[in-house]
Amino acid sequence: MRAPRDAEVRYELQLQRRVAFSETDTAGIVHFSNFFRYFEDAEHEIWRSAGLSIHPETSPIGWPRVSASCEFHRPLRFEQEFEVIVRIAEMTRRTITYTGEITRSGERVATATWKIACVSKLPDGSMKSIDIPEDVASCLAPLTSHIAPRASQ
Amino acid sequence: MRAPRDAEVRYELQLQRRVAFSETDTAGIVHFSNFFRYFEDAEHEIWRSAGLSIHPETSPIGWPRVSASCEFHRPLRFEQEFEVIVRIAEMTRRTITYTGEITRSGERVATATWKIACVSKLPDGSMKSIDIPEDVASCLAPLTSHIAPRASQ
Amino acid sequence: MRAPRDAEVRYELQLQRRVAFSETDTAGIVHFSNFFRYFEDAEHEIWRSAGLSIHPETSPIGWPRVSASCEFHRPLRFEQEFEVIVRIAEMTRRTITYTGEITRSGERVATATWKIACVSKLPDGSMKSIDIPEDVASCLAPLTSHIAPRASQ
Amino acid sequence: MRAPRDAEVRYELQLQRRVAFSETDTAGIVHFSNFFRYFEDAEHEIWRSAGLSIHPETSPIGWPRVSASCEFHRPLRFEQEFEVIVRIAEMTRRTITYTGEITRSGERVATATWKIACVSKLPDGSMKSIDIPEDVASCLAPLTSHIAPRASQ
Repeated sequence: MRAPRDAEVRYELQLQRRVAFSETDTAGIVHFSNFFRYFEDAEHEIWRSAGLSIHPETSPIGWPRVSASCEFHRPLRFEQEFEVIVRIAEMTRRTITYTGEITRSGERVATATWKIACVSKLPDGSMKSIDIPEDVASCLAPLTSHIAPRASQ
Repeated sequence: MRAPRDAEVRYELQLQRRVAFSETDTAGIVHFSNFFRYFEDAEHEIWRSAGLSIHPETSPIGWPRVSASCEFHRPLRFEQEFEVIVRIAEMTRRTITYTGEITRSGERVATATWKIACVSKLPDGSMKSIDIPEDVASCLAPLTSHIAPRASQ
Repeated sequence: MRAPRDAEVRYELQLQRRVAFSETDTAGIVHFSNFFRYFEDAEHEIWRSAGLSIHPETSPIGWPRVSASCEFHRPLRFEQEFEVIVRIAEMTRRTITYTGEITRSGERVATATWKIACVSKLPDGSMKSIDIPEDVASCLAPLTSHIAPRASQ
Repeated sequence: MRAPRDAEVRYELQLQRRVAFSETDTAGIVHFSNFFRYFEDAEHEIWRSAGLSIHPETSPIGWPRVSASCEFHRPLRFEQEFEVIVRIAEMTRRTITYTGEITRSGERVATATWKIACVSKLPDGSMKSIDIPEDVASCLAPLTSHIAPRASQ
C-alpha cells in the first residue's frame, strides 16, 4: 500500500527538468555522466527542502561521494522534459545513502543509488570520516521516516 | 602470480593524466562525475589501440551505457597527476563490461565497473540491442585473453 | 524611455536559475565556461518561446557558434540564485547575434554577446553557410521588433 | 620575419590534444564551451612551465576571468587531434591577457583572447583586485619577452 501523498512529500523529492544542449553528446543523447549530476542536483534540493545546505561556505565539514551507481534504461535527448525523484534510503551514523529514479512520460529512464560520507577537512587537505552533526541529522530525520527500523543499525 | 608484463599490455590500457581546473568543484576536489569521464576516455583509447573507433561518423551502430558504478577512495585535486587503468572484464554476444582503477602515487583513488551494449539506431531515434559485429569482436578479442573461459557463456 | 512591460516580453527572455554544485570550481565560484552554457540555455528557450527548436532531430540544418564573448563582473557561488536575460541583437540573412546579461540581486554578474550562423550539414560532415529558412525567420521576427531598422542591412 | 624556434618556445605554449566523447554535443561537434576549457588548460600549462601554479592550495590569491572571447572557424569532432597554442599578449600591474589558437592539420579551428585579474580573497568571500605578486611576475616575465615595450604601460 502506498503512503498517502502528504506523507510522501516528507521523504521524497521530485524535480522537473529539461535536457540542455550542452548535456548531450555526439551519439545524440544525454551523456551518461550528466545523469549523476541530475541526481546530485535533486539531492541538494532535498537538503534545501530541509532548511540545510550541503556545502555552506567556510564549513569545516564536507560530504564526498563514497560510491555511485546508475542503470540506464532509456536515452534522453535534447529538449526532452523529465522528472528526477530522489529519497534517502539509509542514514547511518556517518553516511547517507540515496536512491533516485529518472522518468519521462511515465517510463523509467535511469535508476541510481549513491552514498555520501560526512568528513572533516583537515588543514593538510586530507579528509577524515566523522559523525554526522546532530543538527544536520535532526533536520534530515523527517526525510527518513519511510525507512523501516532495522535491528542491525 | 602475475602474468609477465608483455602479456599484460595486450589486455590492459593505462593512461597518465593531470586534473584540469574545470574538473574540480567548490569542495576543492575533482567532481565525482568526472571520474566516469576519465574511465570513458581510457575505454575509448582501448578501442583505438585495437584499431577501432567506438563512434565512427555515420555508423548505424551505437554503444550506450547500460550501467556504471564507481567507488571513490581518495580525492584528486587540481593539477595532480594520476593513472587510469582499464580492461575488458567480460565480452558477451551483445555487451562489453569493463573494470577500471584510478591510482595516484601507488594509492587507489577510485575503482569502477561499467557495461555497454551494442545497439542499432532506428530511423525513429530509438535503439535496439543487436549482436556485436564480428569484425569488432575479433579486433577486441586479444584484449579479452586474460578472462578465464566460463561454461556459462 | 523604456518600452512597456508587455512589449518587452515579446523580445526578451528571462530565466531564473540556481548554481549547481557541478558548475563550481576549486576557486569556490562558477567556472567561467558555464556562463556560456547559461546563456545558451536561455537562447534555446527563446526559440522554444517562438514555437521553434534550434535542433530538431534529423534536421539537415545546424546553428554553430561563429563567436562568443563574455565579461565577468562578479562571481557566482554554489546555490546562489540568478537571472539570465537574453535578447536578439541582430538578425541578418545568415546569422543571428544575441546579447545577454546575468544578474543577481540587481547587480550585474556577466554580460555576453554571441553570434550563430545557419549552416547546411553536408554528407561529408562539413558545414556550409546558408540563408536562414523563411519559416524560422518569421517565427523569430517578433523577437527582433525592438531593433532599430538600419539602412546598412 | 619569424623568430627562431628556440626563442619561440620561451613565450609560447603548445599542447597536443584529442577530442573526448564527453566534449561533443548532439550536433556532432565539440560543444563551443569546451574550447574555453582547452585554452584554459594550456594557460595553466604555461604557469607550470614557468614553475608556478595558478591555484596553489590555501593561497589567499585568485585569478578570476575578467573577460573571454573566442571565434570559431571550424568544428572539431570526436577523436580528432588538434593543437592548442597559447601565449601571454600583455601583462599589466594587475592583469594578464592571453591569446590562443586551436589548429588542426594546419587549419585554424578557433582563435581566442582572455584576461585574468589578480585578486585577494577576502574573508567574506568577495574578491579585491590587487597587484600581481613580484615573484609571479618575475617567473612569467620570460614569457612576455616577445611583447614590444609600450610607452603607455
